[in-house]
Amino acid sequence: MSDWVTVATQSDLADTSRIETFSDGVFAIAITLLVLELHIPELEPDERLWPALVDEWPHFGAYLTSFAILGIMWVNHHSMFRQIQRADRGLMFLNLFLLLWAALLPFPTNLFAEYLLDDTIDANVAAAVYSTNLTLAAISFSLIWWHVLRRHLVDHDMTPAQQRASVLRYSIGTAFYAACIGLSFISAPLTLLVQFLLAVYYGFEQLRTRARPGV
Amino acid sequence: MSDWVTVATQSDLADTSRIETFSDGVFAIAITLLVLELHIPELEPDERLWPALVDEWPHFGAYLTSFAILGIMWVNHHSMFRQIQRADRGLMFLNLFLLLWAALLPFPTNLFAEYLLDDTIDANVAAAVYSTNLTLAAISFSLIWWHVLRRHLVDHDMTPAQQRASVLRYSIGTAFYAACIGLSFISAPLTLLVQFLLAVYYGFEQLRTRARPGV
Amino acid sequence: MSDWVTVATQSDLADTSRIETFSDGVFAIAITLLVLELHIPELEPDERLWPALVDEWPHFGAYLTSFAILGIMWVNHHSMFRQIQRADRGLMFLNLFLLLWAALLPFPTNLFAEYLLDDTIDANVAAAVYSTNLTLAAISFSLIWWHVLRRHLVDHDMTPAQQRASVLRYSIGTAFYAACIGLSFISAPLTLLVQFLLAVYYGFEQLRTRARPGV
Amino acid sequence: MSDWVTVATQSDLADTSRIETFSDGVFAIAITLLVLELHIPELEPDERLWPALVDEWPHFGAYLTSFAILGIMWVNHHSMFRQIQRADRGLMFLNLFLLLWAALLPFPTNLFAEYLLDDTIDANVAAAVYSTNLTLAAISFSLIWWHVLRRHLVDHDMTPAQQRASVLRYSIGTAFYAACIGLSFISAPLTLLVQFLLAVYYGFEQLRTRARPGV
Repeated sequence: MSDWVTVATQSDLADTSRIETFSDGVFAIAITLLVLELHIPELEPDERLWPALVDEWPHFGAYLTSFAILGIMWVNHHSMFRQIQRADRGLMFLNLFLLLWAALLPFPTNLFAEYLLDDTIDANVAAAVYSTNLTLAAISFSLIWWHVLRRHLVDHDMTPAQQRASVLRYSIGTAFYAACIGLSFISAPLTLLVQFLLAVYYGFEQLRTRARPGV
Repeated sequence: MSDWVTVATQSDLADTSRIETFSDGVFAIAITLLVLELHIPELEPDERLWPALVDEWPHFGAYLTSFAILGIMWVNHHSMFRQIQRADRGLMFLNLFLLLWAALLPFPTNLFAEYLLDDTIDANVAAAVYSTNLTLAAISFSLIWWHVLRRHLVDHDMTPAQQRASVLRYSIGTAFYAACIGLSFISAPLTLLVQFLLAVYYGFEQLRTRARPGV
Repeated sequence: MSDWVTVATQSDLADTSRIETFSDGVFAIAITLLVLELHIPELEPDERLWPALVDEWPHFGAYLTSFAILGIMWVNHHSMFRQIQRADRGLMFLNLFLLLWAALLPFPTNLFAEYLLDDTIDANVAAAVYSTNLTLAAISFSLIWWHVLRRHLVDHDMTPAQQRASVLRYSIGTAFYAACIGLSFISAPLTLLVQFLLAVYYGFEQLRTRARPGV
Repeated sequence: MSDWVTVATQSDLADTSRIETFSDGVFAIAITLLVLELHIPELEPDERLWPALVDEWPHFGAYLTSFAILGIMWVNHHSMFRQIQRADRGLMFLNLFLLLWAALLPFPTNLFAEYLLDDTIDANVAAAVYSTNLTLAAISFSLIWWHVLRRHLVDHDMTPAQQRASVLRYSIGTAFYAACIGLSFISAPLTLLVQFLLAVYYGFEQLRTRARPGV
């Protein structure tokens, strides 16, 4: 059976690329499906289209936030997998766990938009559902990175200090999103704003990291 | 015409990768389209959002089960095609037959969720339709593997005993799903639970298989 | 500017693969979106689910036919592009013209299913719209192949006789689908049946062609 | 940390291909999702299907225009990225900004079609929203190209004059679409016609450019 083992090991190098293709597909589809939650406003008699569109701003705001977050997730996934040279089944299943939360995001996005301006506890519940989805996605990223380090699937050697630093970085992201679950019960619109700014910050922070790679 | 033949044969090596790309696309789209079946609950006057969401658990349960099953199907497809080195038209059409059932799954998923808690025979019918879809997908996998062995399209030599073992393994999976058609007429919720656990079991079983490849 | 020309020419070899990836994406999405046109039947009081599902057979029949046709189109596209080594802009735009009809197919599929059993001229109109879509897709295939031969973009030499034979073959397919437009005004269900059988025949015919490549 | 830097730099060459795959996915999904905005007309009693379909021409016109525009955008993206050899994070985020407007297009397409024949200011507003979306997409293309030139990410040397010419070309496209925002307030149907013709012109103009690459 050693022949089989050899084949399997050799093919492992090809694995990562098919995981990436599949993941790119799910990210691309989820990010594009978001548009299906935008509906043409139904006008009352004597109502004009422009103010009716402006009234829909929670849907556009939630659309933009989820688009930015899925975009950042894709960029992150991209960066992470560029460092991963070999895939095992554990990585495939943890990756599926991440894709579950990415693919689900259009639903809480719609829920959040629909209840954002509601003046009852329902607005907070919708915001908390959205934040929980993001937190679970952040946890999935942490689990993947932790698994990858533990199984030595990365393509370069990191010192223990560097490994701790990288794990810490993912944990901080997770803590931020978890804090948003709490924030949801204070103000739903503020939660959306913070999450949008968080996505923009992550975008710029990563830009900066790459702009000075030697630091 | 020998020139044409040579070209065709040489290109056959490239074939598998385009079948895989197309299949990855269909799996990725089907798994992501599942979210479109989740709808925001319409609240009665004085109803709150959270209990209304909890009442929707059959939709979330069916979503999670179908997501897990399509994920496992993709991982299986991945493993199977890693061993296939050449593609013929027969493989392409059997693969399309498999994709038919993968792409169709969002429909019975929605049907199953909608009727899961119905207290008439309709719940059993919906469960049986869902189970039949899964059984046909399992049969497609068996047909592909049987075709691949018969046409020597795999990239390594298997002894007749190993071939019988691998065919038997696919047959057992098919038998499990077929048994779920019967189970559907006993209890629809139990059928959903068994199918979810079956997907989780297959996930772990495959993890174990790969963790000890030399055994 | 000769540097630019060299670069462009060299990159042309890579072109085909990105056209194929994009086309695979459109085919995979269109074939998977078909499922969104299947709806859960709304039951009348005292109606059971199973007979209501059976009454929906036009939708399942149209789904299966369109799935088979898009599957065959993908296989055809695959075979055709395997022989194309270089892409020019003309090929890209003709390919977009083909993708237009592939991507549009879910709409006439739904229309056809909805009106299949209508006892007015509307059934014939719906069938004719569906057949016209297929005819335009077949014409697109012919145009691509004609363009490819004329611009010598194929990767092997064909004799003029072989070229005429291959062009004739595409023309026959187009003529069959065009004849279905006429058939639509005789019987809508018969048109669906013929189109399904045509797809199955093309599948088997291609299987046979490849099984004896040396003939 | 020099090891990490080396790895990152070397991997940069692979980057572009994954950005292209992701972008191809988004373009392919957006172009295929357009079909979901086409609905079967609901017939009045005694109304026939054919005239009802003909009445839907704004939806078919908007579908065709958006399909052509997204197709041209994909071809443009293709041409642009063929010249880009290395990707940095800035390119990834500017590309996401472009994909935002590509993925959003099905919404204003539907809005435009729905209000095209409205005899109030609403028709002009819908046309202006559509034109603004296209203008923002054109601006994104300009930003990407400007960034790519400034960071020397292209795979060949352009003289300053060639660079200015290429930037000017993108600016002219942007100006055309911006002018359509103004035109929207004169006539909505004319705006749709101009945008369709603009897409066709760009298609042919690019065909011509490539047909004589040495000029």
